[in-house]
Order: sequence, then structure tokens, then C-alpha cells
Amino acid sequence: MPKKIFFTPGPSALYFTVEEHLKKALKEQVLEVNHRSAQAEGYFKEASDNLKQLMNLPEGYHVFFLSSATEIWERLIQNCIIEKSFHLCYGAFSNRFYDFAIKHGVAAEKAEAPFGSIPADYEIPQDTELISMALNETSAGVTFPAEDIYKIRESHPEALIAIDGVSAFPAIDLDFSKVDSAYFSVQKCFGLPAGLGVWIVNDRCLEKANRKLAAGHSIGAYQALPNLVKNAKKHQPTYTFNVLNVYLLARVTADMLEKGIDVIRRETNYKGLLLQHTIATHPQLSHFVEDSRLRSKTVVVARTEGPSEAWIEALSSKGFVVGNGYGPHKGKQIRIASFPTHSKEQIELLADIITGITL
Amino acid sequence: MPKKIFFTPGPSALYFTVEEHLKKALKEQVLEVNHRSAQAEGYFKEASDNLKQLMNLPEGYHVFFLSSATEIWERLIQNCIIEKSFHLCYGAFSNRFYDFAIKHGVAAEKAEAPFGSIPADYEIPQDTELISMALNETSAGVTFPAEDIYKIRESHPEALIAIDGVSAFPAIDLDFSKVDSAYFSVQKCFGLPAGLGVWIVNDRCLEKANRKLAAGHSIGAYQALPNLVKNAKKHQPTYTFNVLNVYLLARVTADMLEKGIDVIRRETNYKGLLLQHTIATHPQLSHFVEDSRLRSKTVVVARTEGPSEAWIEALSSKGFVVGNGYGPHKGKQIRIASFPTHSKEQIELLADIITGITL
Repeated sequence: MPKKIFFTPGPSALYFTVEEHLKKALKEQVLEVNHRSAQAEGYFKEASDNLKQLMNLPEGYHVFFLSSATEIWERLIQNCIIEKSFHLCYGAFSNRFYDFAIKHGVAAEKAEAPFGSIPADYEIPQDTELISMALNETSAGVTFPAEDIYKIRESHPEALIAIDGVSAFPAIDLDFSKVDSAYFSVQKCFGLPAGLGVWIVNDRCLEKANRKLAAGHSIGAYQALPNLVKNAKKHQPTYTFNVLNVYLLARVTADMLEKGIDVIRRETNYKGLLLQHTIATHPQLSHFVEDSRLRSKTVVVARTEGPSEAWIEALSSKGFVVGNGYGPHKGKQIRIASFPTHSKEQIELLADIITGITL
Repeated sequence: MPKKIFFTPGPSALYFTVEEHLKKALKEQVLEVNHRSAQAEGYFKEASDNLKQLMNLPEGYHVFFLSSATEIWERLIQNCIIEKSFHLCYGAFSNRFYDFAIKHGVAAEKAEAPFGSIPADYEIPQDTELISMALNETSAGVTFPAEDIYKIRESHPEALIAIDGVSAFPAIDLDFSKVDSAYFSVQKCFGLPAGLGVWIVNDRCLEKANRKLAAGHSIGAYQALPNLVKNAKKHQPTYTFNVLNVYLLARVTADMLEKGIDVIRRETNYKGLLLQHTIATHPQLSHFVEDSRLRSKTVVVARTEGPSEAWIEALSSKGFVVGNGYGPHKGKQIRIASFPTHSKEQIELLADIITGITL
């Protein structure tokens, strides 16, 4: 059976170089080396340095490797919040972070908008400790414009700002000097197998964790920020991490640097606009996100006239796997990932096929 | 360069079938499927069912897939301890679990023995909530005899008993009906790449978590036991887990079931005794663990006359990678893993080579 192409919004298609890197990893016994060996430290350093360059991180920003973005929500709560957080919620994932904060006993507040838009007319308390939003809400295909983040930064200089960049980085640009923390998992835009989350923090987050600890609160054990920073300086993990995925991340980020982040972002823009145009012009599809300014370029969401399963089936029979609507929108939408591994030619082919389908 | 054979006590040599399974996984696009798809549910179910059979788990024991054994220490604290725990400490890992409990604000107590022995003459308070010990202390090559665990069970029927089986399962037998929880990571005896921890709990652990929650304490969010149990019943993870490793675990446990757990355990005994004999008879090596009853069959530790690096180098030049002493014992010991992937022939060859070395 010929291989299918996964346009699901994560896990998605592997980055097109991963299979070769994986075969080399087997040959070089990467899967057997100790996570504290010089070899593994080399993978850690290379993945971290490449990410810093690719995403243009300012000095004083640290990169850690955890198990998932889900875990990072808990680590943010554990390290960076004593009492209060504020969450901009407009989809499953931004809401889930808020739910986590509540379950951990935080007096969390939120401003909520239905799937497909972002909150308007809200006031963030000046004494909140951490403000969170998703640069790209994977569940709804909604982008939170970076300029809006920068405005919140200006009006709330004291709070920490933490960005969910799960299905955005590195395809979508962000000025990291205007945020304090960001995180993503590697099975979206980086095209890696699932099982690794990347957490970026600046020194303000570290200071906050130290203050929380000094005030007599627990900040956890192995994933406490002082411990993460101490180990990362030696290019070492805080636990037996997914060595293979860190190796693959080092290789894929090197490939991306060679291609050039500008090229990747230009292509992201082109592919996103092409998919959006395809949806807008198909008589049986329509844009789920009404405001064009909020439409994601990496996760494009279409309402389907009939059940979306018919669309998913029709595309799958031609070898193209797209995602269903998320949660309450299942059966009513298709979600299409356009990540760096998806070539312009693949997206053009997909667009042509969608255009030719009548259900 | 010919491949080296890793006898390091984890990460260690891959199980000898892993490379083929990994190539098949690439072909079948296992690395791209959604972690909530029917396919991934199939891997979850098969890995869980196989483990239950291989380790002879009684009814009412649940199997969860987390990121590491390190994470599982935190989840045990979060879910199963309100105030008090008791830790039998005799190496780096058993001590680390105690340290974690302290950092999380638990009034933890411990009975400690130096590396190479186990605690004697201790009293476990009757009101402790959880008692922990390592069936095999990877850092010291010390086995805690299963019969001693069963005696503690009898004298402390109310407490939960949690077993670190990281470098023991499934090679070392344990009667799970006499413990409440056990955990391991897959890069030791299961011969998989690092990046997955397996947590086993019975319903008493779940009841404890529910009581802790009802008493107004936080038990965390996505890794709270009620959530883990709810998802595991649907064969679903609580986060985007390492799908590839769960797939490989399903395959390797199927291979082990076909080989037969009795054969694996008989071979473990033979290989362990052969390595122990090799150490005892070499003029420049001696047993680190004095009491033969406590000597591990899966992680065999030898004191070296001179610096252990000379031994490691001499063996490595012949293609055999063994471990150094752990922490304070670095440079003074070699640690040799004898896991299910290491064949009798490989261990016999290693024993011959060690016997032939004079430094």
C-alpha cells in the first residue's frame, strides 16, 4: 500500500528528512547511549543552540526538554504561579491550561471566546502573576495576533507572559523579548514522532520560581526551574529523557537552518493562503474563522456542508489524511495542517483535489 | 565500525528485535498516527495486555504509560500520599524518591543503608501511608529480596507498598498481589529506547487518590489517578505520549511472551551467576555487594583494583560497553547489565574476556 500523507494537525507527517536520520541513528546506536553521556550532551546542546538560532531567542533564554506541552502547563503552574493567573481561552487547549491551574488550586481567571474567535473586551487584573495565550489554537485554527500579545506586554509589564506555540513555532514568528516563556511539542511543525515537549523560559521565570521557593512553597523536584537551569547549563536533562527525539530535533533544526527560516515562513504564508482560498471558493466548504486576521496559516479549518467524515473519507481514499473538527466540532469541520514538512507541491495537489470533490 | 554491545545498566542494548520492529513502524507510518486514533488505542491495549500476562498481574491492576520512572515518583506523591511516607534507601534511586517526597512537603521518613547493603533494624511507623523500596537498586547492584517485601506487607496491611522495578521487571519475579504499585522505565530490561515509564497501580491506590481529593487536596490534573484510570479503560493516554515506544513495547512484550517468561528468568539466573563467578575468581576484581543473598542478577557490580576507567576502556576496545560506578563509586567499580536482550552467548563471551584481562 502506498504511504498516506498526513495533513492532520499533529501528530502530522514526519519532517521529510526524519526517516533518513532515524536510520542513521540506528546505525550509530543513538538509541542505546546513556542520557548523561558526552554524546547525549552533544545532541542536547545542538538541539538547544539550533532552536535558539531558528527562533531568534534573546540572551538569557533557556531551553529545556520535557515530555509534552501538557507537562509544561503543570511546570508553569508549579514554578511560576503562587496565587493568580489569567488565561485567554478560545479553544480546547487554552481552556485546558486554565482547568489545570484550577485543579492545582490557583485562583485562575479567564476571558473566554467561543471556538473560532478570540476574547474581546476583557480586563486583565494588574496583580495577576502569569498571563497565557496560544499563538495558534490548534483545536480551532485561530491565531492570536502577535501584535496583540505585545500590547498586553506593554500594559502588564510585571506579569509573566507564557505562550502556547504548539502548532505555531517555528513557522510563525514571535518576538521572544516580549514574552517570558513559550512552549511547544515536536509532533506538529517540527515533524517529529510524538513524545517530547520544549520549554523556553527567561530569567524572570527563574527568579519567580526562586521567590516562590523562598516564600515556603513547593516548586516540585526534578522539574523545578533552578534544577532545570542547572542541568541545561551542562547540556543535561533532569531525567532519562527521549534521547532519540532530541537527536532527531537536532538534525531537523539543522535542516531547517540550512533551508532558512525566512523561506519556511514565506512558504507557510503561501500555503496557508492557498488553502484558505480553496475553502472560500468551494461551494460546499466555508471558513470556520470569520475574521480573516485570526485565520491560522498552519491549521486551516473549514466547515463542511454535510458530515465532515465524508470529506475525510474521500480525501483518505486518495492518500491524503486530514483532521476532523475538535471536540464539539467533530463531524462538522475538517482541519488541515500546513506545516514546514508539507511542500508547496503537496499543498497545491491537496488544494486541487479538494476543489475537484463534490459530495 | 562494527557495532558495540551495550552492557550498561540502562539505557542498555536494544532488545534484539527492536531494529526490525522500528523499520516496520516506519513503513506502517506508526510515527505519524494520532495518539487518540484506533490504531494507537490498539498499541496501548496490546502493550498493557501483554505486560499483565508477562508479569502475571492480578485482576484490578491498572497499567499506565508515563514519561519516566522519575515522573512516577512525583505522581505517587501527588496521588497517594497526604502526609507521611516511609522509604527504604540503599542507593541513589531509592534515596532520590525520598528527596522528592521532602521537596513536595511530605513528612517523609527513611531507613538508610550504605550502597551495597540494605537497611537492617528499622521500624516502619504503623500510620505511614506509603512504603517504598527498590526490587533492584540500579545504582548499587543490590536486590531487596521479595520475601522481605511480603513480610512488610504482612506487618503493615494498611499502608500502600510501591516498588521500584526499574532494572528488575520482567526478569525478576514479584507477586503483585502483595504490593499496591510498581513502576519501571523501558530502557532497562525491556531493551527499548529511553522515553517511557510504566506505572502499575491497584484499586487501593485509586481509592487513596479519591480520598485525598475529597479531603480538599490537589491530586494534580492530567496524571491524577481517576483521570488515568478513566482513559486507560478506553486504552487512551492522558497526553500526547510516546506512541512509537508504546508500539515497540507491544511488539517486544509479544516477543517475550513467545519466548516464555520462565525461560527469560532461568537465563537471567544463569547469566547473573556466571558474571558473579567471573568477578569472584578474577584476582583484580571483587564483589561490591558482600551478602550473596542481596547480589543482583540483572546489574552485577564489581570493585576494581585500580581505576575502573581502565577496565571500561579495555572492554570498550573489544566492543563491550559496561557501566561505571554510580555517583561516589565512579572510578572504583564497573556495573554490568545482564538484561533479557543479552544472550547467554554474549554474557559467556564477556565473562571470558573479563577473565582474560590483566591490568
